[in-house]
Order: sequence, then structure tokens, then C-alpha cells
Amino acid sequence: MAHLLSTHCTLIPSPATKMFFKPLNQCSAIVHTSVPFWADRSPRMVVKSQRKRQEKQYVSSPMATPISQETGSKSSAASHKIQNESIPKCKKVMVIGGDGYCGWATALHLSNKGYDVAIVDSLVRRLFDQQLGIDSLTPISSIQNRLHRWKSISGKTIQLYIGDICDFEFLSEAFKSFEPDSVVHFGEQRSAPYSMIDRSRAVFTQHNNVIGTLNVLFAIKEFREECHLVKLGTMGEYGTPNIDIEEGYITITHNGRTDTLPYPKQASSFYHLSKVHDSHNIAFTCKAWGIRATDLNQGVVYGVRTDETEMHEELCNRFDYDGVFGTALNRFCVQAAVRHPLTVYGKGGQTRGYLDIRDTVQCVELAIANPAKQGEFRVFNQFTEQFSVNDVAGLVTKAGKKLGLDVQTISVPNPRVEAEEHYYNAKHTKLIELGLRPHLLSDSLLDSLLNFAIKFQDRVDAAQIMPNVSWKKIGVKPRTVAV
Amino acid sequence: MAHLLSTHCTLIPSPATKMFFKPLNQCSAIVHTSVPFWADRSPRMVVKSQRKRQEKQYVSSPMATPISQETGSKSSAASHKIQNESIPKCKKVMVIGGDGYCGWATALHLSNKGYDVAIVDSLVRRLFDQQLGIDSLTPISSIQNRLHRWKSISGKTIQLYIGDICDFEFLSEAFKSFEPDSVVHFGEQRSAPYSMIDRSRAVFTQHNNVIGTLNVLFAIKEFREECHLVKLGTMGEYGTPNIDIEEGYITITHNGRTDTLPYPKQASSFYHLSKVHDSHNIAFTCKAWGIRATDLNQGVVYGVRTDETEMHEELCNRFDYDGVFGTALNRFCVQAAVRHPLTVYGKGGQTRGYLDIRDTVQCVELAIANPAKQGEFRVFNQFTEQFSVNDVAGLVTKAGKKLGLDVQTISVPNPRVEAEEHYYNAKHTKLIELGLRPHLLSDSLLDSLLNFAIKFQDRVDAAQIMPNVSWKKIGVKPRTVAV
Repeated sequence: MAHLLSTHCTLIPSPATKMFFKPLNQCSAIVHTSVPFWADRSPRMVVKSQRKRQEKQYVSSPMATPISQETGSKSSAASHKIQNESIPKCKKVMVIGGDGYCGWATALHLSNKGYDVAIVDSLVRRLFDQQLGIDSLTPISSIQNRLHRWKSISGKTIQLYIGDICDFEFLSEAFKSFEPDSVVHFGEQRSAPYSMIDRSRAVFTQHNNVIGTLNVLFAIKEFREECHLVKLGTMGEYGTPNIDIEEGYITITHNGRTDTLPYPKQASSFYHLSKVHDSHNIAFTCKAWGIRATDLNQGVVYGVRTDETEMHEELCNRFDYDGVFGTALNRFCVQAAVRHPLTVYGKGGQTRGYLDIRDTVQCVELAIANPAKQGEFRVFNQFTEQFSVNDVAGLVTKAGKKLGLDVQTISVPNPRVEAEEHYYNAKHTKLIELGLRPHLLSDSLLDSLLNFAIKFQDRVDAAQIMPNVSWKKIGVKPRTVAV
Repeated sequence: MAHLLSTHCTLIPSPATKMFFKPLNQCSAIVHTSVPFWADRSPRMVVKSQRKRQEKQYVSSPMATPISQETGSKSSAASHKIQNESIPKCKKVMVIGGDGYCGWATALHLSNKGYDVAIVDSLVRRLFDQQLGIDSLTPISSIQNRLHRWKSISGKTIQLYIGDICDFEFLSEAFKSFEPDSVVHFGEQRSAPYSMIDRSRAVFTQHNNVIGTLNVLFAIKEFREECHLVKLGTMGEYGTPNIDIEEGYITITHNGRTDTLPYPKQASSFYHLSKVHDSHNIAFTCKAWGIRATDLNQGVVYGVRTDETEMHEELCNRFDYDGVFGTALNRFCVQAAVRHPLTVYGKGGQTRGYLDIRDTVQCVELAIANPAKQGEFRVFNQFTEQFSVNDVAGLVTKAGKKLGLDVQTISVPNPRVEAEEHYYNAKHTKLIELGLRPHLLSDSLLDSLLNFAIKFQDRVDAAQIMPNVSWKKIGVKPRTVAV
């Protein structure tokens, strides 16, 4: 055991807590602490193993060979050892929130592409499901089993750091231990309705997201100053202005003078606002400290399968259809599958950018492979097509008919405060210029998604479909029962 | 005692804490709890007394008679009882942060003008002084003695709620007890250097300011939905763009379309960023919930005396000259008084808006007296003149010479990350349109400030004058000794 500890795993001691550990397999160990999750010092589990020579490759496409970059980090020499044509050198990627919907798909994709990946996650997203009495349409394995399965299939090890990035002591140990060249930060509470359930969830969302990101920025400054931050923002930061939406910045001529300034933000939930706050904080640290960062203002993600999650059922991604975490297109497919009318909020003219989850992972890889310059705060609008909610409902209805489903649509009172008819034209060329090859929404993808929803229809809880969180009715009394 | 409790004071019980209380005078009581300040449940002291007919008036000028407004609040009837020509009806003003530099002057001014004032303050600003080993140039009395003195001089009672607005249970009790018609929110960590001392102060600043303001917004929504929020922002939210700065919004024509959008923000410290976050959060709640709010983007405040603080030495305001809390003009006057060279950071071309503290109190009164409409998020730029740091140093040098002081100026390495030569032209007409009559920076004011600094020169700690907080060197290690 002593040998195991000294060579194969990193223990992060937690003061004043009782620790015990057990070997999981020949190359990893877990450290549990006895502190409850919500306490100041969250539980820390670390599964870390020495990087081994990867033997099998499931490289699915020749897309976006990462640009090698010498960062001067201590891990360069080690990285060189495993270098071959398909594996980038010196590319250690920490995926914060790597157990979530986008994070899990991204972690597997990057691992498959030859990056040395570590997942940092508190697993709080799984706790939200339990507290709200909701569940993924798809059965999902524990993160530990997911990683064991990935190892057995691909031969690749994804390291795992379980803890809360709001706990800086935990985060700093993870940084010092893994020494990332890039950090992909999905580790935020990501649901607008969740942030509007009650005061405590609003406060949690802003605290968790803003402080977590501040800690990541401080960790980069302190421990890995050349590390590239790839931060997930949202197209919702811009709101729905009556002019074209640019990518992060807009050049304004005013009273005869001209400047290029951050694009004005008009977010419409405490969640979306938290991302606006993050963007401002990150921009400042790029200027003041020379942090290099890419803010990916992502649209609505749909789909569930990626090349890697398809490899085994234990690698299956989560699929949310409930009123809190479910997003429009995925939710409509489930509604169609169980013969529930599609729930269009209000007039349905709400227009947003959408993208396939296979493009999410592609975009993140492109951002990592083409990093921002030191001191640069770069903003990409990450979506491939614009649709209104009515457009999406129409597409699902048409696809459902082909499968013999009689799909109805109803308008339900809009629980949100948002324009239901508005101008919307958002630029999204920067990722295309870097090489993004979009998976546009197709009949075959809709077929596939609908069939997927039909396959799991017995797992659908119809009570979770309707929206039950109101932007106007949010109050200070905690909603402690499932919403 | 039972009678006292039921008629003259409000106790806010704190679960699981030991409480004891003692009467302070015939109309008030204090509740102490045994929980340490920094704990989740902060200590709560409540000094609340029935409003009495005010007998003496120290109305100093006929400025800005508040516009009466029927808000339909429960307290209207009570307010009418004390109405006379110089006292507005239905104007209960909660001043959060009322023990601070701007807050104390404002609380006294509003009380003097006939408003029914309550101060809400955690007193944490006094704790900062102790932790950093700094002190006000002026000796300041405890908040309790300040209020007793004010009562004895003016006959007016200012109610006092001591607690942390990040503790929603405390804040909600204060709201339900006082039932404010307006909330003036100064209750934030207000120093840019403080927010840049170390990671924990950066996190504290953003948490304290953002969550405190969120709680105020929720309290208004839940308990006093017609209450007008007057929130102190900062001109620093805008940064130094190369175009004119407008008041909160800018009309942009882009690709043939036009919209009026929030003015882009480029804040340059974690403190200034916290105010940007607040502004976005408040704007959202105005839109989503119909909150009425005025964001006062204040410039650099100078001066110390107001009509009310002059009435007695126990009412004297604080005066900060140290490198963390001292602001340019006040700090230069102290430096001149003690023959310390004026410390210009870098080239000294940094230009900002400035205002006399007598205009701060006037502006707040104007905002209260002319409230925003329900659902309106109104932004005023609150300053009266623009100066560069070199301008300010030149003015102090000139004024010093008249008093026989040999004032030197040195350039010290700029501890901040900011443009030292830049365009700056910020609009500030809205408060003028409401009736602001500025106290422009004059020779007599500078004479008075310098003489004030000379009077207290024996209290100056020269070790606190130089800047000791670096925007670039901030680290994760807590700085636990005085800076």
C-alpha cells in the first residue's frame, strides 16, 4: 500500500477529517473524507494514476489536429514520452464539470484524441437530480464506473479529482497535482430555471459560479500561468438586442469617436447573469494578469450521442427532459415519444442559437488546439444554427410523423420573462474559421433522437415535463420539495 | 421589560444562540448574540424605537423638497402624523452601510431633512481598520454614541439594525420591522485595493457585495415591492473607453439597425467588478419583477464635513488617508499636512469624476425624492467635475503653498493596472436636471481640508500612506498582517 500511495496516487489530506482509502484497481486509489458535501470543506476523492502509454486509439475523425505548443511546463518531458503522430505533446487538459452533459462528452472526446485528461467534479449535478426528484432519461453510470469502462475500452486513463472548486484548498491541490496546460470549465450550475426556483438557489448559483471561476483564475495565476482557460459561457449573456450580436466585442462610433468595447449584456436569469459576471471577471484577469482565456458563448445543445459515448452503454451520456434541466429540442423529442404535447412557452418566437453535442466537443477541441494568446480574452459564439421555439416544435412534429407519432403542440404560459417575438441575428464565424465542421440539424438526427426517446420512454416521469419554476413568482421561502 | 419589548423595540431572535439584552435608554434596546461575526449567522443588534414627533429641525438649506408620493404602504398613516411642510410624508429610508463614510453623512442628512431613517450596518468596515492596522484620520465615535448624540442634538431618532445583509434572515426581519419606502444601499466593501489584497479578500468582496445586493432585491420583492432601491455604483464600472461615457445606456446603430443598450462595462478591480455584477442583477430584477431602482455611479468623493456632522464632534465623519481606503484628494491633503510628498501613481493622467461629500448626500436625497418608476432601472452618473490625478496634485500643491506648506509630488510605480493617459468624457446631467447644485472644488474647500488634516496630523501613521497592494502581485496566500 505504501508503494501504491507513493507512486500511483495523490492524496489530498483534509484537516480534521477521518480518511480512509481503498485501492480501486492496480493503478488508482480513492480518498474519502467524512465531511458532508455542503460543508465548507467538501469531500475530496482523488483517483489519480500515472499516465501510461496509451495502447488503443479510437480517433474517430482527422479533425483538428491540435497545434503543439511549448508551454515550458514541468510536464513537457513526460508528455514527450508518449508523443506520436496522433497524440499532441504537452496537452494536459483539466475538464471541470467533466461528469455533466457537455463535460462528460468532452472529456471522452479529448481523451480519445490523445489528450491527457483529468476530470474535476463535485458531482453536485447528481445531487440536484435527487433533491428535485428528477432523473436523466438515460440510465447513467457512476463516474467511477464510467472511467473504469473507458479505461477497459480505450486503454486510456482519465484522472479524477472529486471536490468543489469553491474550496480553493482542494482546487489548488488538483492544479499542483495535475499541472494542466488547458482548463475547460463546465463546472457551473447551468440551469436558468434552477437559478429561479427560490432565493437560496439564486444565491447558490451566483456564488457557486462566480466564486468557482474566481478560484480557477487564481489557481491559473498562482500555479500554471501559461495554462489556457476555456470557459463555457452562454449565448444568453447577450439577451435579444435589436441589433446584430457580435462575438464578444462591438465597435461603436459615438459622437465622432470610435472604440471596440465588450458587447453589452442583457441576461435574463440569475444563471445567465452569473455567466455575465464570469465574463467580466475573466476579461479583467486577462488584462491585469495576462491570463489567456477563451469564452465559449454556447447556444442550446441537443443530441446525446458522440463517437465515444456510443462505445458502451456504461459510457452513455445523460439526457435531461424535465422542466428544470431539459432544453428545448431534447425535451420536445421526449414529449413526442410519450405522446405529450410539445410545450411551447408563450408565442414561441423566442429565437436562439443551437448546436449538436458533437459540435460542442469539436469546438472545445478547436479552442484548446488554437489557444488564446497570453493576456487575450477571446470570445467565440458557439452554435451552428438559429431556430425559434416554434421552428423546433415544427421540426420535431414533422420527424415524429415519419415515425407514426401524432405530435401535438400546445402553448403554455411562459414561466420566463423574455421577448417572445424579436429580432435575432448572432454572428458565429470564428469557430468555423478555426475549422469547425458543423453537424447541422437533420432529419436523420431527429429520427435518431426520437427513436432514442422512444427506447427509454418507460423511464419518463410525465410529472416532470411541465414547467414549474416561474421567473415572477420566485420567492424567499425555500422550496424543499421536488419541483 | 415585557412592556418595553412589546412597544419600543424589536428583537430578532437568532436560533441556537444565547441572547441577552439591556435597555440603552427609554426607547431602545440592544440584542446581542453570541455567534462570532464571521459565522453564518452574524451577530444582530437591534436598536429600534417608535418614531416620535421630531421637535428640533436643523434643515440647512431649502434644497430639494422631496416630492411626496403615495406608495400605498402600510406605514402611510403613521407617516402622515408627523407631516409638516419640511417633512416629507411616507418616507422611511433604510440606509444600508449607514456607519460608513458616505452612509453616515447621508443618514444624518436625510434624518435632518425629515425622513424617518434606519441604519442597517454590520460594522465590518471598523473591523477592516483593525485587521489592517489602519485608522480614520478623525476620531470617530461608536455608532451607538453617534446616534445618541444625534438624538440629543436634533431630537430625531435614527433606528439601528446591526447585522449582515448576506444573512437573509436578519435582513428580512429588518425589512418587516422598519418597512422602508426607500433603501439606500451603501453596504458594500468599497475599496478597490482591499479587493486586490489577496484571493480571500477578492472572494469576500464579490461574495459580500453581490449576495448582499441579491438579498436586498429579494427582500424588496417579498416584503416591500414598491420600495425604491437607491444603489451606490461607481463610475469605475465604465473604465476608460475611448468614446464618451453616457449615463447607463448607449444608443448604438449597427449594420443598419438601432437599439439602446446597457453601456459596456470595463471594470478594473474585483471591487469595481462587483458593482458591475450588481448593476446587471438589479437591471434584471427591474425587468422581471418590476423593481424600481436608481444606480448612482458615483465618482471619487472628497471632503469630510457636512452640515450635520459639523454639529458635534461625536458626529464627525471618518476620513481615510491610507493606501487601501484613502482616495486621491483626501489622501493628498493629509500627505501635504504631514510634509509627505504627494504620491501620484504612474504618469498621473488617470482622469476620473470627483464630487464633494456634501453633493453625495444631496444626490441621494434627490434620487429618493424623485424615485424611479416601477420596473425602471435608472442610472445616474454622480459626480460634478473631472480631474486627472496630476490636476488634483496641482490643486493641493497650490492650496498648500498659501498655507505655507512646501508640497512636493513624487511619481510612484502604479500599483494598479490602468491607463495612465486616456480620453475621458463622462456625462453627468441627470442629477443636475433633478436639481443638484454642485459644490465645486474651491480654494476655500481645499484650505478647509488642509487645515483639517493639519489639525489631526498627530494621528497620521506615515507607514500607511504608501500603496502596498499590487494588482499584479495579488496571490492566493492570505495576507494576515497589516498591509
